[in-house]
Amino acid sequence: MSLFVNCKYAGAEVTPEAVAKIRPEVEKAFNLLRSGGGAGSEFTGWLDLPINYDRDEFEAIKTCAERIKSDSDVLVVIGIGGSYLGARAVIELIKSNNYNALKKDTPEIYFAGNTISPSAVSDIISICEGKDFSINVISKSGTTTEPAVAFRIFRELLIKKYGHAEAARRIYVTTDKSKGKLKELADREGYASFIVPDDIGGRYSVLTAVGLLPIAVAGVDIDSLMEGARGAREAYLNCDIDKNDCCKYAAVRNILYRSGKKIELCVAYEPAFTMMCEWFKQLFGESEGKDGLGIYPSSAIFSTDLHSLGQYIQQGERHIFETVVFFTEPKEDLTINADVEDIDGLNFLCGKKLSYVNKKAFEGTVIAHADGGAPSIIIEIDKADEYNTGWMIYFFELSCAISGYILGVNPFDQPGVESYKKNMFALLGMPGFESERERILHRLSE
Amino acid sequence: MSLFVNCKYAGAEVTPEAVAKIRPEVEKAFNLLRSGGGAGSEFTGWLDLPINYDRDEFEAIKTCAERIKSDSDVLVVIGIGGSYLGARAVIELIKSNNYNALKKDTPEIYFAGNTISPSAVSDIISICEGKDFSINVISKSGTTTEPAVAFRIFRELLIKKYGHAEAARRIYVTTDKSKGKLKELADREGYASFIVPDDIGGRYSVLTAVGLLPIAVAGVDIDSLMEGARGAREAYLNCDIDKNDCCKYAAVRNILYRSGKKIELCVAYEPAFTMMCEWFKQLFGESEGKDGLGIYPSSAIFSTDLHSLGQYIQQGERHIFETVVFFTEPKEDLTINADVEDIDGLNFLCGKKLSYVNKKAFEGTVIAHADGGAPSIIIEIDKADEYNTGWMIYFFELSCAISGYILGVNPFDQPGVESYKKNMFALLGMPGFESERERILHRLSE
Repeated sequence: MSLFVNCKYAGAEVTPEAVAKIRPEVEKAFNLLRSGGGAGSEFTGWLDLPINYDRDEFEAIKTCAERIKSDSDVLVVIGIGGSYLGARAVIELIKSNNYNALKKDTPEIYFAGNTISPSAVSDIISICEGKDFSINVISKSGTTTEPAVAFRIFRELLIKKYGHAEAARRIYVTTDKSKGKLKELADREGYASFIVPDDIGGRYSVLTAVGLLPIAVAGVDIDSLMEGARGAREAYLNCDIDKNDCCKYAAVRNILYRSGKKIELCVAYEPAFTMMCEWFKQLFGESEGKDGLGIYPSSAIFSTDLHSLGQYIQQGERHIFETVVFFTEPKEDLTINADVEDIDGLNFLCGKKLSYVNKKAFEGTVIAHADGGAPSIIIEIDKADEYNTGWMIYFFELSCAISGYILGVNPFDQPGVESYKKNMFALLGMPGFESERERILHRLSE
Repeated sequence: MSLFVNCKYAGAEVTPEAVAKIRPEVEKAFNLLRSGGGAGSEFTGWLDLPINYDRDEFEAIKTCAERIKSDSDVLVVIGIGGSYLGARAVIELIKSNNYNALKKDTPEIYFAGNTISPSAVSDIISICEGKDFSINVISKSGTTTEPAVAFRIFRELLIKKYGHAEAARRIYVTTDKSKGKLKELADREGYASFIVPDDIGGRYSVLTAVGLLPIAVAGVDIDSLMEGARGAREAYLNCDIDKNDCCKYAAVRNILYRSGKKIELCVAYEPAFTMMCEWFKQLFGESEGKDGLGIYPSSAIFSTDLHSLGQYIQQGERHIFETVVFFTEPKEDLTINADVEDIDGLNFLCGKKLSYVNKKAFEGTVIAHADGGAPSIIIEIDKADEYNTGWMIYFFELSCAISGYILGVNPFDQPGVESYKKNMFALLGMPGFESERERILHRLSE
């Protein structure tokens, strides 16, 4: 086992009685998920993905990743939401949040198509100038506004720079297996193409081609990543709060939610985890935030944010609990050396490793917050490597699905995401939205 | 006026009666702040800073910034909390969140000393390798663990690379004006040094030397930044909810809080605003989060996060309101071109600017969220340039102080930040924490 859920500091609300009370609900949720009888069960392809992914496509991903590594200084990944966060989160956690700035023998990777800000798009255009680049566009429908606009811009740049034939070799499409205009375009132009599966929603898709191609380009060992996910799937096949950490985590966070802890702060002690927190927020927020329900997902990096959000967590409203991901082995380490003058008074730390100090900050904080009424669920993981990251991803996905069923929602849909799109299309004058347009223009002019 | 607070979508709770009811509280808070009679009034130096900052130090900052620009490829800024977030936020907003990756004639700027993660520190060491670099260490006491440890490491590197004399020329210290070991060291070694004022707390310090030196090194016009702050100070001298936008904003967010909106989401439609959201979170969270009170500060970048947090905001628990910062003029713009195949169905947008689409996304979202029960306070700002950024900073600082007094807390202290530190020092065996150590080791072994 490479991941361990520790509920020692999960708060006074997590009594044996509370656990006994929720146990049958957890069992029901787990069985609903595994039997395929629950709401949204047509989107549970991620459950067995680690043992039945398409091996041929997996090899093709590795081949294309090698090609991109050999002919590109930059890979521009175009996608939004689940077609953006997973890949970026894994690359930053395993490599570095300074991945692009570090010396390396793999391409820089920039994420476009997740914003409409012209400044943000211009930045990436200017970064690509004078460099060899390729594009991986990721969109199930091919028509989502943000990635579609970015694909227009970067495809045009690519064709201008390399001509049609070479540009076609540099465009990698991840989309529906058969439907849609993007698929048609890929087939006609001969773009390499990969599949966004029908039975896996965006936020659960990081271990499909959606995430794997950019992740492989960054030099991450995707075999080991999948192996970790496989290990997790195997470990969490049986429902038992005492033995299955996903069931335990789902149970405890629902107990805390029912006791008034409405905000979950996903915390790590590694800046490289920042984007993994964003992935976590989409996974849980989009899965549970509906029907007027759901824990609000937030995040922080400690000890950094102990000097910003820390005051609130310690003494503000008592509606927060933390899910703290702590890696016990650092990827690298540094030793604190003696300073003859000891101006900072830290010579008592001489010879100590930074990882040791970081661990003491973690332990001290968990206790301080528990004492202040902000409980923590601790997720201890050996190391931020491929195997453990794959395991952790599966752990969170499964925990989230179970948790959503305990809450009583469909953890696999996202009907609310359409609301802003509909208004935006109406305001932009998209054909078919004429009557909406009248209504919304009236609202704006009120 | 370059900033305008629009409460049209602030929700049904913001009735004329609610405003009338809170008006005397706002007036009382404002007068308490301006008269210097409120809690923490010894830390309100930021109020008149825009008209009475030290002109000689300001010129010295510009001189040192020029020196750093001329002799350094990289500036390593060492600081945490208020000695970190303000500078980074301003640089990213005015220049770019991809500042370091873009071609430019100013040094790269990396922020260290805000984490104990050895991986994060190693990254910056490796980025400095083979490059000319300088250090700006920012710490009032000189003994805060995170920056102190980083300063040990980077000072040693600097001395190893350049020798004592040249290293001394490359170290810039921002600390207490007279007290403390860091000040002693600076005087003895001849480091250029700048002042962290006694009457301005970390989170209100971005327009002092704390923020201004790194900001100037990035090529930001700090005269114009201060001019904007001066404009804001002048505009907000009188208390009137109808005319003073700080009073209006403070009033409305307290009305929303009292009606059960416990989470404030600071939102912008520019990825370059990401770190400004972090600055906002420290400012408000640390000022208001105490005595079991306070709005929980969170953030999002749209439209990016409409594809992650959007579902929750639209349909989850109804405890959220948004503070949306929208810049009406983009810094740069791009046009959407025709695509002969129109594979994405977006040809109806041909000839339209991206800024236009971004604005429609903003309008459509505000209405969708209002309809879903997530109200928005809109802060419209002309442009993310120096003048308007200076104005906005002062706007938020003043709003926050007024808001804290309305809430009934001391918006200038942060007693809760000590709790984790005390535990950490005890666990690390710091001299003087022996009895704490026993207690906490016992807690861990329970």
